[in-house]
Formats: sequence, structure tokens, C-alpha cells
Amino acid sequence: MHRVAVLGAAGFAGAVCAYIAERHPSLELTMITGRSDAGRRLDHIYPKYRVRRELESYDPDRVAERADAALVAYPHGAAAPVVEDLLHRGLKVVDLSADFRVPQELYERWYQPHEAPGLLRRSIYGLTETHRDEIRAADLVAGPGCYPTAALLAVWPLRELARDVVIDAKSGVSGAGRGANETTHFVSVAENMNPYKVEGHRHRAELESELGPELPITFIPHLVPIDQGLLASAYVTPAHGVSAQEVRDLFREAYDGEPFIELADEPPGVRDVRETNICRIHATVEPATGRVMAFAAIDNLWKGAAGQAVQDLNLMLGLDEREGLV
Amino acid sequence: MHRVAVLGAAGFAGAVCAYIAERHPSLELTMITGRSDAGRRLDHIYPKYRVRRELESYDPDRVAERADAALVAYPHGAAAPVVEDLLHRGLKVVDLSADFRVPQELYERWYQPHEAPGLLRRSIYGLTETHRDEIRAADLVAGPGCYPTAALLAVWPLRELARDVVIDAKSGVSGAGRGANETTHFVSVAENMNPYKVEGHRHRAELESELGPELPITFIPHLVPIDQGLLASAYVTPAHGVSAQEVRDLFREAYDGEPFIELADEPPGVRDVRETNICRIHATVEPATGRVMAFAAIDNLWKGAAGQAVQDLNLMLGLDEREGLV
Amino acid sequence: MHRVAVLGAAGFAGAVCAYIAERHPSLELTMITGRSDAGRRLDHIYPKYRVRRELESYDPDRVAERADAALVAYPHGAAAPVVEDLLHRGLKVVDLSADFRVPQELYERWYQPHEAPGLLRRSIYGLTETHRDEIRAADLVAGPGCYPTAALLAVWPLRELARDVVIDAKSGVSGAGRGANETTHFVSVAENMNPYKVEGHRHRAELESELGPELPITFIPHLVPIDQGLLASAYVTPAHGVSAQEVRDLFREAYDGEPFIELADEPPGVRDVRETNICRIHATVEPATGRVMAFAAIDNLWKGAAGQAVQDLNLMLGLDEREGLV
Amino acid sequence: MHRVAVLGAAGFAGAVCAYIAERHPSLELTMITGRSDAGRRLDHIYPKYRVRRELESYDPDRVAERADAALVAYPHGAAAPVVEDLLHRGLKVVDLSADFRVPQELYERWYQPHEAPGLLRRSIYGLTETHRDEIRAADLVAGPGCYPTAALLAVWPLRELARDVVIDAKSGVSGAGRGANETTHFVSVAENMNPYKVEGHRHRAELESELGPELPITFIPHLVPIDQGLLASAYVTPAHGVSAQEVRDLFREAYDGEPFIELADEPPGVRDVRETNICRIHATVEPATGRVMAFAAIDNLWKGAAGQAVQDLNLMLGLDEREGLV
Repeated sequence: MHRVAVLGAAGFAGAVCAYIAERHPSLELTMITGRSDAGRRLDHIYPKYRVRRELESYDPDRVAERADAALVAYPHGAAAPVVEDLLHRGLKVVDLSADFRVPQELYERWYQPHEAPGLLRRSIYGLTETHRDEIRAADLVAGPGCYPTAALLAVWPLRELARDVVIDAKSGVSGAGRGANETTHFVSVAENMNPYKVEGHRHRAELESELGPELPITFIPHLVPIDQGLLASAYVTPAHGVSAQEVRDLFREAYDGEPFIELADEPPGVRDVRETNICRIHATVEPATGRVMAFAAIDNLWKGAAGQAVQDLNLMLGLDEREGLV
Repeated sequence: MHRVAVLGAAGFAGAVCAYIAERHPSLELTMITGRSDAGRRLDHIYPKYRVRRELESYDPDRVAERADAALVAYPHGAAAPVVEDLLHRGLKVVDLSADFRVPQELYERWYQPHEAPGLLRRSIYGLTETHRDEIRAADLVAGPGCYPTAALLAVWPLRELARDVVIDAKSGVSGAGRGANETTHFVSVAENMNPYKVEGHRHRAELESELGPELPITFIPHLVPIDQGLLASAYVTPAHGVSAQEVRDLFREAYDGEPFIELADEPPGVRDVRETNICRIHATVEPATGRVMAFAAIDNLWKGAAGQAVQDLNLMLGLDEREGLV
Repeated sequence: MHRVAVLGAAGFAGAVCAYIAERHPSLELTMITGRSDAGRRLDHIYPKYRVRRELESYDPDRVAERADAALVAYPHGAAAPVVEDLLHRGLKVVDLSADFRVPQELYERWYQPHEAPGLLRRSIYGLTETHRDEIRAADLVAGPGCYPTAALLAVWPLRELARDVVIDAKSGVSGAGRGANETTHFVSVAENMNPYKVEGHRHRAELESELGPELPITFIPHLVPIDQGLLASAYVTPAHGVSAQEVRDLFREAYDGEPFIELADEPPGVRDVRETNICRIHATVEPATGRVMAFAAIDNLWKGAAGQAVQDLNLMLGLDEREGLV
Repeated sequence: MHRVAVLGAAGFAGAVCAYIAERHPSLELTMITGRSDAGRRLDHIYPKYRVRRELESYDPDRVAERADAALVAYPHGAAAPVVEDLLHRGLKVVDLSADFRVPQELYERWYQPHEAPGLLRRSIYGLTETHRDEIRAADLVAGPGCYPTAALLAVWPLRELARDVVIDAKSGVSGAGRGANETTHFVSVAENMNPYKVEGHRHRAELESELGPELPITFIPHLVPIDQGLLASAYVTPAHGVSAQEVRDLFREAYDGEPFIELADEPPGVRDVRETNICRIHATVEPATGRVMAFAAIDNLWKGAAGQAVQDLNLMLGLDEREGLV
């Protein structure tokens, strides 16, 4: 059994980390922390996860004493110093924030001055399907953003073929986090949907970092009235004409044997993957234009955050990457 | 007062036609028909519209006796012969089906053999903002589809600039009509969203017909868990670089004085236009790529169907086009 | 034209007051105020209401200069001093808060020390159907709470017959107000429903005040995942056996000629009354037990708040009470 | 391993039975049948359950050959002959329909002439918490209805104390089954809620059967816009005054050690139990009236149908009743 702490367990993604860790056959959840919620029991905040344990306040020595690995679900900026603490104390860390996902220059363009730039070299981008071997060897893995997870999985098999990419992404409200504000108020969301951050959403830093700066990528997120679920619709102008069959073959090759990629004959719905670590994808060609299209559905809190973090941690600990996730 | 009949009033769009017509200061609703629901009262099917009137079965002579104009909300195929009946009897007709929206060749490619091809020449496409003068002079107007309404209004000011267009459209469930099936079952839709008809949705016939065959248009519809509302997100590759200000100017010029177009400084939400005839649009340029983007929100049953049909009828009857709609 | 100010127009109920007032044929909306939102335009907060006017900060002299009447939609406690200001300056006031709904003793038991107890004698409870004549003569009317509106309208015709009443009430989230918190977060509400304040909700003060202290009333509110709408299910143990027909007759007599009461042959849905001032009621007897039951549906922001406030104001100003509401 | 067949697996409850059975450590799912869907794969109808198996048509000999036990999820009336077939062939059966839940007289009053009245004596009502020992010994168990499950669990500890009971129950739409009709259409349900079958819902037969004919029980179901989840709010007039503490003690005693009953200090939400076999209950006394109240939340497809059926089957097979359900 590997002892694991979940830091920031009072947030949506952190709570799912705690939920998965507590049911995981090879992990022992030894500690959960919260910032403003320290002292509350997690099952009082989220009865449905039934993690009957108290949120503690963060103390790096206590974490190091009680855990061999940590899932860090703090907001960006707040995560970096914590990650630094824990790495210095010998823990393996999966950080779910944006702090270690992209090079310093990109980070500072989209976010803020970096708190621990020296660690960026050690960090591996935690999209398992494209970085598996590096993840196995890493002690710091940066869990990808929810949008980039779906978008990259939709585009990855097409990256050589693509001349131009438009990603129209739609997310449920849990992606906006637990903060209560005008945007997340039920009355703002119900019977509504809208694009947002159309001048540039920070998650595009990850797309550029992973796909390279040469590929023109339009990326626009939308908010839709669902709780958990994210759909990325990718429209790819191919460098040369391809058939639907060729496109499907590209996906089959790219994802052959992947335990959490599901290639579907029909367009996926987010309900198909709710509360799973699965990314369900349908790829095809639009007959009228020859445009290549791939639609990828995930649960933003699972494959888009906590599930993928555990998948990464499984690899870092030498476990079967499916453990605790099926 | 102009006497008007609503045929097919038991469907979602037809019921809104009846609702608007009954409150319209210059129309007198004299008759509503339903096919399988003849004999039922409309307010028993839709209490909220409070049209306390019985659905009759269709008889062209009776319609002609009691009405000077008709809003026809029958399904495509079923509409054409009815429209023919009524035109022959001297009524002005707005047909909400697909039967008179596009040339015969396009219709038969996407739908079925046409029942009244001889009338296609007389028919005007009822997108008021682009065909106003022809509509004024017409006796047959084809109400546009809900998707094309939003998509065309988003793209129209950009049509000279556009090299390539991707339209990712999202619709609420009322767009699928009153038919109860696996797709419209609450349990299929709640907490779900998915693309559909990705190999080609029939509404693309209207986009091709209005924008011309040279412009490559990708058009993919999605179903989202809302009742009424439709959002078209249009991604346009421009022929040459333009600024956000230039794009906004194009929209201001194109829609100057339009009573039902609302240009917004922020991305629109469908809630902003619910139960109105308004199309709310935000257009801008993505800084990272120079891509031009326009987001158009409508209520699919109002501006996307019944509201626009009344707007058309107002013009055909020489009324202020806003009557009954504000 | 009567000049009217809406104070607290940035809240959900206040915004609907402004919306109705601006379209009202005999009212001129001359001023809207907000507290934390002063300086913002109301249509920027609520695009759908299209009240293109700036929220001002509150100044009693300025209000008195520009308005003959006021709709006050401030929170309880904050409302009383404002109401006092305006009455002293000669305005007619409908206050939507709880401050003037019940006698001082009841108010202070459920709320807090009263800020203007001297005015309580002048205040009339604004449930139009039961206090119409007093409202006509009043210069201060207290708009009823949303729950009491539906509950009282369901129980009123049965008040002589009732031995015991259980009211199980269900409200949409807009009833909780615009405040963003854990309770109103989309993720807390979607796919959820729950009772709350089961040890005693403050709105029971109004039920006791209007129905008298002798009648035992159980009143339990529930939160359901809808935006606008409230349903009160009232279960009444009758003093003696009655038939369904007798019950229906009681309702017919009680509500004969009422412009906003709709007696339905079927149980009402809240969708039937959305964005209307109508209370739709179905009353019957349960065959198995003889229990009398009445189900009343309203839009909590309309008949449960803003719509009813305008209905009251219409009466106070000598107008037809339906003006601006149909 | 016990071999199990799920009959009627294409319905909502049957599909959950198949889902649970396939992941159950001591069951081997050997066969699933569907009626109109025979030949389709279950994961094509419900991708999220990932039961990659074809629905067969029903043949009693084939079932008997391949299974030792069956979960029957056919509609009432259709279930009885199938159950008879299988019992004669020596299978243990949990029937999820209404066919074996109540005595013949009650059944025929609320449903229709009974198809296999001779089996009624052998059938045990499958509410585990109240019939556990009989279930262990049974070869035919009738899975309780979803409403009675929540209602009975809310009322059971109070049955000696109760003089009079009002149950206001609220269900998500999956309780209405997979049939697509006006009631289950997304557009009918979204932003709506309403009571239904107010003159008498068939599930009251179970309440009378289990609680006895002397106790007056009002039972009114409501439809709310959620997918899975059911809340029973029970209002009980006690025979004598009791304190909240005494009520809580009654529940603690009644449900001591129950693996799927969760007594909560706060009113339960259905989200707390979604996709679990748990019934979460809060019981208290209304201070103003002394009325005893109990609120019970379940997932109507799990504890209200498939989960409880597996819980029953576990007992019938001598397994730990929690197997496959936690």
C-alpha cells in the first residue's frame, strides 16, 4: 500500500481525488487538507463521496510524515510552493493546477510570475496517452487542464495531418470550480449556454505547448447547463484529402490498447462517460467539405482532473494504471 | 385586422404562432388546425399559451373562408400541398417547413421528391434581415430553419471576407419537435450533450443556398439540455487580416436599424433572448490566430421559427414588422 | 401616467419590478436603485429584461422628487427605514420585504427587532385576492412572501373547513435570491432536491398571521432544480366529510372573477404559469382518505413577488389591477 | 459464482440490474433479454453501463439452462407468467414488477386480473430492512416500488406512533420508465414540476399492504426535472407528543446496523444517494406543531429498483447483502 495525501480536498477535483484514493486497492488515503474548510469533515461538504474524514490544515512536515505521495489540488499560484515543499521531502507529486503544465514563458504569459520555475524541468505533462513513459519515471507530474485533455485527445492522432484546427469546447459548471459567483449561480446557468473568454482562455497555453506553435489553433470554451461533463468538438483542415476510414485508422493506431480511450461509431455524449475516467471519441470526415472532425467527451472532474491524476500516480508508483479507476 | 389561420398549431412552433397571433394588435386568429390532435383544445396541450380554442381538422375551403393569411407549421412534405391549396385560394402564406426554402435540386438532395415544385419560383426565403424587400412583395414566404437563422445572421456580414467557415451550433430540445422518442426523452438529454448528424444535417441546404456553393461551410449541430434556445458559433477564416474593430463595424453596417438584431459587447447567452424574436450577436477576432468569430443566440421557437414567421407576415401585410413581437 | 421608482432593482424580484414597470401602460419608470450595483446598467446584469437604465444609489429626496410611488425590493431589515423615508415624503409604497407583513410580535420572533414598528398599523398585507379593498385604500402595502402566496391561495377557500393543514412547498432557486453561495451553486442544485429549514421557515409567520393561530399548520419548503416556479401542495384534514365537487365549489366561489386565479381540472405545473402573474390551482379530495388537497403553482418572481407588487400598486393607484400584467 | 439472467434488461431498471450483476464479485451475468430490443447490444442503448452483450429474446428453457437465478424487469402483467416459468424450472427469482408485491385483492383493485395468483403465497415483499429473514428463505421476492421503498423506510420506525400520515413524494423522470411520451419529453419536464395521479397512484397498494389498512395514508407523487432520484417527505401526526430526540432514537433502533440506511443530521438531498443503494433519512419534529417528519432520499433506479433487487438476491443466495453494491 502506498500512503497518499490529497491536498485541497474541499474543491471539486480534490474531493474526487479523495473519493478515488479511499476506494483504491493499492493506495491508503492518510490525510486530506483544505484551506478555508480545515476542521470540517469532507462528507459534510460532499455527502455523496462518503469520505468520512476531517480536512486538516496544510503542514509540509506532517504530510511528509504520513504520505509517500500527494495529489495537490490547490489553485494555480498556490500550488507551486506546496509542490516544492513536498518534492524536497521526497514525495511523489501529481499537481492538478496549471503551475507545472507549460514552460515558464508560456505560463507567465497566461498566468502570473512563476513561484518555482526551477522545478519546471522536472515536471512531466500528465496526459497519459501521450507521455506515459516519462510519467512512469517522474516524481512530479502536472495534471492537464480539463479542456486540453479532451482537445488534445481529439487532435493528437491528427497532428501530422492538421493544417488548421478549430476547437469548440463545451463544459459543465463543475469545471468552473466550487467558487460561488454570478457565473455559477443556478439561475445564471439553467436554460442558458454561452461562449466565454473568447479573446483567449488560459488553457490554450497547454494546446500550444503540446501541439507546437506552428499549428494555428482556435480554441473557444462554452458553458452549458450540466454538472459534470466536457465535450471538445475539433474541426481540422487536413493537409491533404483523407477518407473517414483513414481517419478512423489514425485513431485506432494512436489509441490501440489504451485502457481509457473509447472509439465510438457514433458521436459521444458526455453522459456516456459521467463519473468514469474514459475519453470517448468519434472521428470522421464531413462529406461536404472534407473537413476532418473529432468529438471527444470526458467527465471534466475525472479524466479531466482527478481520474487522470490517479492514472498518472498509478504509473509513477509502478501500479497498473487502471487501478482504482474501473 | 387581418384574419389569420395557424395550421399545425399543435406542434411547438405552431403553438407559438397561435400564441403570438392571438395577442397581435393587427391580426385576428380565426382558426387553428391540428392533425392528430384535432378536437383538442390548444390550452389543454399547452396551458402556458392560454389559446383557449379548439384545434380543427384541415379543410382548405374552410380556411379560405375564414382567413386572409396562413401560418403553416406542418412537417416538410406535408406542407407543400397545403400551401398550394391556400395560394390557389388567394391567401398569403408563410410556410415554416423546409418545403419552399431552397431550389428543387437542393431540396431533393437533402429531403425527398418535391410535391409542388411549380411554386418554388414564387417563394421567398424569409430571413427578414437579408430578404426584406422581396418578402414585402411576396405571397409565399418560407420561414428559415432554426439553425440557418442563427448561422446566417452570424455569417452574413462576413460573407465577402470569408474564405472558410466552421459553424458549431447548439440547440435546445424543442428544436427536435414535439415527437416523443429516445432522443427527446428527459433521461437521454439531462446532464448530456452531444453532436449529431455529423455526416450532414439537412439545414446545410439553406446555408449553401444563401451563401453560395463556393464558400466551404462546415456545419455541425449539437443537442444540449435546455428547452428553448439555439447558439451558433461561427469560426471564419478571413481572406485577409482584419481587426476586431473592423469586424464590429461590418456588423454595425449590416444590421444598422434592424429591430431584432442586438449587437453585444459580450458573448451572448441563449437566456438573453428566450421568448423573444431577438438575435443577439457578438463578433470579434481571436488574437492568437486572427480568426474571425461570431456568436449568435436566438430562441429557436421564436426568431428560429414562429417569431420570424410573424415578422415575415407583418411585412407581407404591410404592417410594422415589430407588431405583435415586442 | 404615475411616476414610479424601483428600489433594489438589481435583485431578482426588483429586476422583474423594473421590467414590468417599464412596459406598463400607466406607469412611468423614472428611477431604479441598487446598493452594491449602483452605477451599473440593469441590462448589463440582466440582458433579458432590456431595462437600459443605470442603477442609482438611494437618496430619499431624489426618489421623492422623481416618483409618486415606489416598489421597494430591499432585504428585510434594510427595507423598513427606506419605506419610512418614502411614506414621510408622500409616496405610495409597496414593500416586497418581510418588514411589514406581520404584527411586530410575530416579526420579532422570526426575524429581528423591527426598525419602524410605528408603521405596522398602516400596512396592508398585499395578497390581493384576500385584501383587495384595504389595498385600494392603503399607502403602504407589504408584498407577501412567495411561499405564503401560493400556500394561502391554496388554503384560503378551505379555511373554515380545515382542522389541520400540511403544506409541502417546492421552490425554484430564484426564490433564494441573487446571492451566490453553496446553496445556489449550479452544482449543488442540478440533479438534486431537498427539504430545508425543516425546524421552521420564517414564512410561516405569514401563514399564522393570515390563517390565525388556532389552525395547526405544518409548512416545509423544498428546493428543486428549476429557475422560476413554486408549487404548494396543501393537505387539509377537513372538519367533516366533503366531496370533490363541494371542494371545487368552494374554490369557484372564493375566486369567482379573480383575474389571476386559474382553477384547473388537472394538477398544475409551474411551467404553466412561468413569467405570468397567474396562480393555477387544482383542488380535490383523495378518495382513499377523504383528505382535501389543493395544489397551487405560481412563478415565485411574478405572483410570488414582483407581479403581485404591481397588482397591488395598480389598486393603490386606482388602475385596473391587470394593467401591465397581461 | 451464481449464474444470473436479467430479463427486461433494455428498460431503465433492468439495465442497472445488468450493470450491477456484471460487476458483482459473486454473480456471473450469463444472459440478458429484451422484448422489442432483442438483437441490439445493451451498450449501444446505454453506453454508460458498458454491458457489451446482446439482448436475447426470452425463452424459459434457455434461461433455465444458463442461469440459477433471474432478475425480472418486465412490466406488470407481463412479469407474472415469466416468473411462473422460471420458478417451475427451479430458478430463484426477484421480480421487479408489481405482480407479486401485494395480495390478490389489492393487486386486482389497483392493477388488473392476476396472471398467477397461486404464486402470491410464496412471494416475499423485498424491502430488505423489514423482511430480511423471509427474503433469505424465499425463492420468489417482489422488489418494492420506488415510491413505497422511500415512503416505507421513512414511516416504518413511526408505525406504532402514527395516527395519520401524509406522504408527499417527488420523483425524477427515470421513474416513469423508458417509454417516450408527452410526460417524459424533455420539453414537458424541464423547468417544470407537478403533482400527478392525485386521485390515487397504484403504489399506495403497497403502503396499505405493509402498513395495514387502519392507518390513514395520503400519498401524492410529484414529477420533478431530475433524471434519477426520489424523495419522500412524510408528515406523521403522532398518537402522543414526542421530542425530536425520541424520534431520532426510534430511527436509530429500527435501523441499527442496516448497511444501506444512512441517518443524517440534515435533510437529505437526492444527489447524496445518486447511483448508490443507500436510503438517506432525516427525521425530526416540527416545533410549531409537534408533527413528526421524516424525509427519505433514494436513487429510484438503485434502492428503488435494481439495487434493492440485487440486495434481495444476495440474501436469497446466502451472500453478504452488500456484495456488488458498495
